[in-house]
Amino acid sequence: MSYENTVIKERLKNLRAKMQEYGIDYYMMPTSDFHNSEYSADFFKVREYFCGFDGSNGTLVVSQDHAGMWTDGRYFIQAENQMKGTGVELFKMMNPGVPTIEEFLFDNMKEGQTLGFDGRVVSTSIGERLEKKLSDKKVNFRIDKDLAEEVWTERPALPCHDMYVLSDELCGRSFKEKLSDVRAKMEKAGAKAHLLSKLDDIMWLTNLRGNDVECNPVALSYAYITMDEFILFVQEKEVTEEVRKYCDKVGIVLKDYHEIMSFISSVKFEGDILYDKRNTNFLTFKTLSDKTKADNVQMKNEKDPTELMKAVKNETELKNIREVYLRDSAALTEFIYWVKKNVGKMPMTEYTAAMKLDSMRAELPGFIELSFPTISAYNANAAMAHYEASENNAAEVKAQGMLLVDSGGTYMGGTTDVTRTIVVGEISDEIKKHYTATVAGMLQMADALFLEGCTGRNLDVYARRPLWDIGIDYNHGTGHGIGYMLNVHEGPHSLRWRYAEGVSEALLEPGMIVSDEPGVYIEGSHGIRIENIIEVVERSENEYGKFLGFEHLTYAPIDLEAIDTRYMKPEHVELLNKYHKAVYDKVSPLIKDEEVLAWLKEATREI
Amino acid sequence: MSYENTVIKERLKNLRAKMQEYGIDYYMMPTSDFHNSEYSADFFKVREYFCGFDGSNGTLVVSQDHAGMWTDGRYFIQAENQMKGTGVELFKMMNPGVPTIEEFLFDNMKEGQTLGFDGRVVSTSIGERLEKKLSDKKVNFRIDKDLAEEVWTERPALPCHDMYVLSDELCGRSFKEKLSDVRAKMEKAGAKAHLLSKLDDIMWLTNLRGNDVECNPVALSYAYITMDEFILFVQEKEVTEEVRKYCDKVGIVLKDYHEIMSFISSVKFEGDILYDKRNTNFLTFKTLSDKTKADNVQMKNEKDPTELMKAVKNETELKNIREVYLRDSAALTEFIYWVKKNVGKMPMTEYTAAMKLDSMRAELPGFIELSFPTISAYNANAAMAHYEASENNAAEVKAQGMLLVDSGGTYMGGTTDVTRTIVVGEISDEIKKHYTATVAGMLQMADALFLEGCTGRNLDVYARRPLWDIGIDYNHGTGHGIGYMLNVHEGPHSLRWRYAEGVSEALLEPGMIVSDEPGVYIEGSHGIRIENIIEVVERSENEYGKFLGFEHLTYAPIDLEAIDTRYMKPEHVELLNKYHKAVYDKVSPLIKDEEVLAWLKEATREI
Repeated sequence: MSYENTVIKERLKNLRAKMQEYGIDYYMMPTSDFHNSEYSADFFKVREYFCGFDGSNGTLVVSQDHAGMWTDGRYFIQAENQMKGTGVELFKMMNPGVPTIEEFLFDNMKEGQTLGFDGRVVSTSIGERLEKKLSDKKVNFRIDKDLAEEVWTERPALPCHDMYVLSDELCGRSFKEKLSDVRAKMEKAGAKAHLLSKLDDIMWLTNLRGNDVECNPVALSYAYITMDEFILFVQEKEVTEEVRKYCDKVGIVLKDYHEIMSFISSVKFEGDILYDKRNTNFLTFKTLSDKTKADNVQMKNEKDPTELMKAVKNETELKNIREVYLRDSAALTEFIYWVKKNVGKMPMTEYTAAMKLDSMRAELPGFIELSFPTISAYNANAAMAHYEASENNAAEVKAQGMLLVDSGGTYMGGTTDVTRTIVVGEISDEIKKHYTATVAGMLQMADALFLEGCTGRNLDVYARRPLWDIGIDYNHGTGHGIGYMLNVHEGPHSLRWRYAEGVSEALLEPGMIVSDEPGVYIEGSHGIRIENIIEVVERSENEYGKFLGFEHLTYAPIDLEAIDTRYMKPEHVELLNKYHKAVYDKVSPLIKDEEVLAWLKEATREI
Repeated sequence: MSYENTVIKERLKNLRAKMQEYGIDYYMMPTSDFHNSEYSADFFKVREYFCGFDGSNGTLVVSQDHAGMWTDGRYFIQAENQMKGTGVELFKMMNPGVPTIEEFLFDNMKEGQTLGFDGRVVSTSIGERLEKKLSDKKVNFRIDKDLAEEVWTERPALPCHDMYVLSDELCGRSFKEKLSDVRAKMEKAGAKAHLLSKLDDIMWLTNLRGNDVECNPVALSYAYITMDEFILFVQEKEVTEEVRKYCDKVGIVLKDYHEIMSFISSVKFEGDILYDKRNTNFLTFKTLSDKTKADNVQMKNEKDPTELMKAVKNETELKNIREVYLRDSAALTEFIYWVKKNVGKMPMTEYTAAMKLDSMRAELPGFIELSFPTISAYNANAAMAHYEASENNAAEVKAQGMLLVDSGGTYMGGTTDVTRTIVVGEISDEIKKHYTATVAGMLQMADALFLEGCTGRNLDVYARRPLWDIGIDYNHGTGHGIGYMLNVHEGPHSLRWRYAEGVSEALLEPGMIVSDEPGVYIEGSHGIRIENIIEVVERSENEYGKFLGFEHLTYAPIDLEAIDTRYMKPEHVELLNKYHKAVYDKVSPLIKDEEVLAWLKEATREI
């Protein structure tokens, strides 16, 4: 007799009862929070609750007589194991013959049936696609019901942590100044109101921070902006006395987070409303659509004005970021020394090494939290794109090969992100070749000189060319923007090369910061990634325009044990020597330990 | 008393009388033929006839009491001079406060008035923009009337020259094979019919050629394609006995060119029709819209399937192109020698030098026509983007400075395009610096190695970087596609860097050929452009994809008198030496004259 997962089956039974009660024939549960955040809190793990699968990507669709779960190739094996005995069918996304969720619903739903989902955890693009696909079938939608609310007993609470205020001095610009810029953009777009749903944009604009999303210092919130009002929707319990006083002072009207939908439904729109479809969940979108139609005003889908303002750091932010990156680089330098000194002499796993680094960061002044869970991957593990070591499942780091560490912190004054691949023992000549090319690519990108008007797609070849020259590529972008005491991933700019019809690109502008992280991933053998964060700076201006370049923000040594000049052009050697000289000059004053200092001198020597 | 241009005034008077007769309040005359060709025949010079201005860009708008002509900055002075005494107002496009044509019409037309133009010489995008802008004003459109037809006495005839057939051997693929690929694409797009308006695409597809557009070996034509029929609309007089026999044989149904609109209006569409809005004139578009609505089928706006097929040259085309480029390069080499030997010793102007080169090309086997009017520009003239010397207006070429020559021919077996800037006397150190950087850019681009998936926007920095490094840019793209015995400019691929939202890019594919032509333009001083045509080739393939690169098609010496290695990286010196060795090896067998040969040896020496 085969194993039966009675816990899950019972939960599904309860869900189906509720579906019947509400007249919902198919109920869909994707993986997201209300703001499409990078990390979802436990409150949002509805799909996991109802099928057992806990990977980072999956959508569960349940009807009275069937349940199916869609996930991608990373998770086929894990999902099969975790859903054993639940009766939930696994749909292997992108595999030949496997229907998409839309196709499945189109094929299975009958005319007049009802599809339900929590419209707050579904993006507008997916919602619209479903509507379009199922419109011929006359399918009804019920998107205002989170059935888990009524079925999931002992559900974790919605994250709700104290917010805090950043000083204008720390932010460089006050909320009022930023708001006046946003209003100017609204005016330019012909909008009288603006609904902002993106959490890091709301935080940046208000100079507030929160703690509701793992590694992202943001509060669950919405902002509604008119020409004379600014309403912030946050959970009442998060509003400390300090936050309340600040809001009073700067004219932020506070309303409860859960009132947003009823607010939209009841507010009277006096003119067109600006919103960004990419960042607006489907329920908000539909609620807004209905109300604007009723008020006879237009919805203007434009990029959130805050996005670009947030990406172009101001002078204060840049000054603080530069300092924070130096301190962070010094800590990483000490960590690299610690790894090299201790490997093979004390018990060390990927996990304990990460813990060591995390604790070193935590001791730095102004430390708030990690900017993402530290990736610590030894040898072949580093070749896996989504590898995550845990306390109980971590490889031992021995005095052989390399340890890749991708990590960062959020501090008062900036958010960091850096990757170094550390040589801990013998490595092959092939690895040296790959390592050297990766370093050459990173340095060559940072050495770019370009006219204003370039986007990341114009420059990406600088990072890849040394790898392409040896027949290797990496299957990820070269760089992403980084927030200021905010999310480690932010737009609108990036460094990437692939063309996708209709995808919008952002010009690189002075004050933007971006990661520069080429890599090599050889399955079953080794993984290399070298990541610096670089800042876009102006070099000169003449009749042809503004010439821009990059300056490094990260100053941590690159492992010379893995560098072989036979694989480098003379100009790459020159760039590495110049970089290492700067590393020593800038980081050595921050390092107290003589032993580490002596090692750093050697580690940054001219080659 | 001011001068009055009574000729133009009389013509305008006649035009206005016709406008009244047809109830047209405003009549617009842009600059185009029915197919948006690069060169318009005299038949189409309606705007010039009615206002006197003969520049390459201008639109005339006439009402009963006003006439205005819009042109761009290149032509402000010329237009003012040529329109003196005509009463036509000059609208300086892009100047502050100057309305666009749409704005002008919006501001001046009254409700219920009628705007007229020949819908065949207006692109659909412009037509739609006008409709949208003027819809609020309830303006009527009359787009099926070419008033010049009735007013312009002694108008030149519509171009009408004999067509000819290319053998399947010369084309590499037969019409039937190509047609079957087009039909497969139609099927994929869900279309049962396809209207093709683009002349070079029709020529490429049918393996026919014509001579109705200057420098473009094309016949005025339309093609209507269904799954079992291929109708070619051409002027009956152009169909020679040979062409008729060929069409009979391969199943091309011939109809008269002028029947296209009545054909569209009367044909019964059995399914959706594929068309390419970019290439369809407004009258065709509207006629098609009306008929498809009546027949209850959809118009599918997709890129003409022929565009990409035509751009990716087949093996036969490539083999012939390579040979043709060698012969063309040899002729250019002899010309360079001729210039250098004779300059200062015989009368030479920009014009006579161009004539010399043109006549040398004309003697080559299989010569059909120039692929564009030869640009021959001496010293400061070469800095002007649209400089064109004529017999009566050409600078004398003296033994000082440089002569820029951009030229090409269409031969049986290929169309060429090449630019060399020839040193004819003393040049400054600054010029050498600019020249050397231009050459480095051209060679560095040709040396690119890249993964399939790249478009020209990923690679353009290779050509520009050496110039950007010295604070210089050029205000044009780096490269364009080139036809096979067809137009010297063709898409869909290009080498350029600037981002424009929503503009589509084409991936670079093996078999595409593209120009590589960086330059330096210093107003009042000098102009430099070095242009090779390069071919996209496959270098290798592995798990990361196909790695591509370029091979030169052009093999003509680059003037070492203007090269200073102080301004070059070692790798650029290496690239130049490698290129020059190939030039000598490939071109010397084609050169008979011992003197030229000896010079070429020296001109391609290692530096």
